[in-house]
Amino acid sequence: MTAVPARIGDAIDEIDTPALIVDLDAFDRNVRKMADFARQHGVRLRPHAKTHKSPAIALKQIAHGAVGQCCQKVGEAEALVRGGVKDVLVSNQLVSEKKLRRLAALATDATIGLCFDAPEQVALASRVAKDFGVQIDGLVEIEVGMQRCGVEPGAAAVDLAKLIANSPGLRFRGLQAYHGTAQHLATHGDREQAIGGAADSVRKSVDALKLAGIPCEVVTGAGTGTYSIEGQSGLWNELQTGSYIFMDVDYARIGGRGGGRFNDFEHSLFVLATVMSVPNDERAIVDAGLKSMSFEKGPPWVHGRSDLECVGLSDEHGKLKLKSGKRPKLGEKVMLIPGHCDPTVNLHDWYVGVRRGRVEALWPITARGAAT
Amino acid sequence: MTAVPARIGDAIDEIDTPALIVDLDAFDRNVRKMADFARQHGVRLRPHAKTHKSPAIALKQIAHGAVGQCCQKVGEAEALVRGGVKDVLVSNQLVSEKKLRRLAALATDATIGLCFDAPEQVALASRVAKDFGVQIDGLVEIEVGMQRCGVEPGAAAVDLAKLIANSPGLRFRGLQAYHGTAQHLATHGDREQAIGGAADSVRKSVDALKLAGIPCEVVTGAGTGTYSIEGQSGLWNELQTGSYIFMDVDYARIGGRGGGRFNDFEHSLFVLATVMSVPNDERAIVDAGLKSMSFEKGPPWVHGRSDLECVGLSDEHGKLKLKSGKRPKLGEKVMLIPGHCDPTVNLHDWYVGVRRGRVEALWPITARGAAT
Repeated sequence: MTAVPARIGDAIDEIDTPALIVDLDAFDRNVRKMADFARQHGVRLRPHAKTHKSPAIALKQIAHGAVGQCCQKVGEAEALVRGGVKDVLVSNQLVSEKKLRRLAALATDATIGLCFDAPEQVALASRVAKDFGVQIDGLVEIEVGMQRCGVEPGAAAVDLAKLIANSPGLRFRGLQAYHGTAQHLATHGDREQAIGGAADSVRKSVDALKLAGIPCEVVTGAGTGTYSIEGQSGLWNELQTGSYIFMDVDYARIGGRGGGRFNDFEHSLFVLATVMSVPNDERAIVDAGLKSMSFEKGPPWVHGRSDLECVGLSDEHGKLKLKSGKRPKLGEKVMLIPGHCDPTVNLHDWYVGVRRGRVEALWPITARGAAT
Repeated sequence: MTAVPARIGDAIDEIDTPALIVDLDAFDRNVRKMADFARQHGVRLRPHAKTHKSPAIALKQIAHGAVGQCCQKVGEAEALVRGGVKDVLVSNQLVSEKKLRRLAALATDATIGLCFDAPEQVALASRVAKDFGVQIDGLVEIEVGMQRCGVEPGAAAVDLAKLIANSPGLRFRGLQAYHGTAQHLATHGDREQAIGGAADSVRKSVDALKLAGIPCEVVTGAGTGTYSIEGQSGLWNELQTGSYIFMDVDYARIGGRGGGRFNDFEHSLFVLATVMSVPNDERAIVDAGLKSMSFEKGPPWVHGRSDLECVGLSDEHGKLKLKSGKRPKLGEKVMLIPGHCDPTVNLHDWYVGVRRGRVEALWPITARGAAT
């Protein structure tokens, strides 16, 4: 773990750069807004910890009413349970006995769920859970349009649910129905159409389970781009949103409900960088690049500065175009809004929480790098 | 730091995934080949530690004749010096007193160099070096075509060199002349042309320094894509190559000297991943995604498997197209060649070195995340 880039009470200018900044006012509003939405629509909120990788943030979400967390990796589940989270769903498949043992070991301290899309995964998880004397909740992941993991809706889902229900150490709880590629479709209408298709798959599977006499307590899924659609569908009863706490350029680019940009949530996550070179009137170079921000969704936006545009990143440099011809000073700080928040967070060890211009929180990103 | 994903002696199938694998035979050949080139052409080799971020690898390069290391960040320099490297050049500008103090503190144990492109940087470094009672070697970075940092060649370079030479605590050593954007140009001819332009800028600056009576001992630069051009130019006398030890898809895609692909070095770096879901005859999903591999240069190649093609990554999933219609088994391992090696390395805490199918080395990536 790298050194803490600030001390509590520091002014923004005193923070060592690059640093991952959280605007605590905006963050708090985002946390509350999603919690309120879930409460108002009678659905459970299980925020995705793959976004934040931090028990400190998980506990805040839970304090606002979230039922627990979901995550993608056993290493993330370990960080969450050790950090005090009592209900964790691994929204992913496991095929390794080593990983399943680590997960089973957590089930003595917390409610643990896991997704399945093949009988071999069920057999292995059942054997390990039995061996550890624990119970793991099993969800059948169904393919709802993103063509990644998941069994076909309907009969195949019922077959796997039956297998889970009949496997010692496992308990069938419901369906994992997440449509990842729907999240960033350009318009709200496009997203409604995609989730409409996913809803057909969910309905088909729920009906088939009912016919087979298998109780399906949970239908879980949704992301920040589509939460309001699943949340009002009457089909999903649990939301797995992650990015809403931070927002990023990739979400700010899509269309909102009434036209215009998607602005249900505020940008609260920034990479603070320092101008280290100003070679001429056309460009300035800052000390944050590919190793401080994920770049596969394009360059970051420069927060609150219409005179600066980020036009490229190399490993440890960001190139800013000077749009007004006015040169920033060497040492000047800029706040960059990352293209994609989740992999950006995974590059840092610390959140530096800022309120009214001062550092108020230092949260370790405990599950940074926890990919196994 | 995350847990070690393997033990010495493990077979490849026993390594926990995702893991960053080094094929030690290929790695050793790459290290030797660049060292031999430098020796044969009478230039110094100062490999770039921003690629590997590991003193263990730095010491191997030095054992093969490298004069030291260069790096981009003070945090990397700290890891190198603490790991036993005696000569480190920060090939970058610093404008923060805090960072300069950390760098000056290293200069009691090692020869430390730093690049400059503005008088304010020189004044600050001089004050801190004096304060610490140390000497820092100063290089003037000149703009040679990539339009990032650097002063204009010629008179401006001389002015800054004079300032460094006259600043207590600093010693003018020479020129930093690195053309980053030339490295991945499509053909060797394109790269020759770009480095030809850079050579004009170097020559102009070297001549102007000579005329001003300022000794210019070092002209340093070059990367893996152009090392043979600078190395045979008679102008550069130090090479800063980094990626050659690992290679990646981005380098494998460019053209080589005699036509065909650039194959001066071998792929030695891989992300080992496990097949976790095979929903149908068209695709398989592995457990490594954006958080295990940098994606801004596109998808990884699947090593040694013409039947599999990686067509996409999400946070923790890689999607493989099954080109033969034959399904891989759940739990099967695949080796992925990353699109871009440097930011991929920065996602991991451990190199798992493999030879003859067994784990032979576990090297910590000590400067992982060292961005300040």
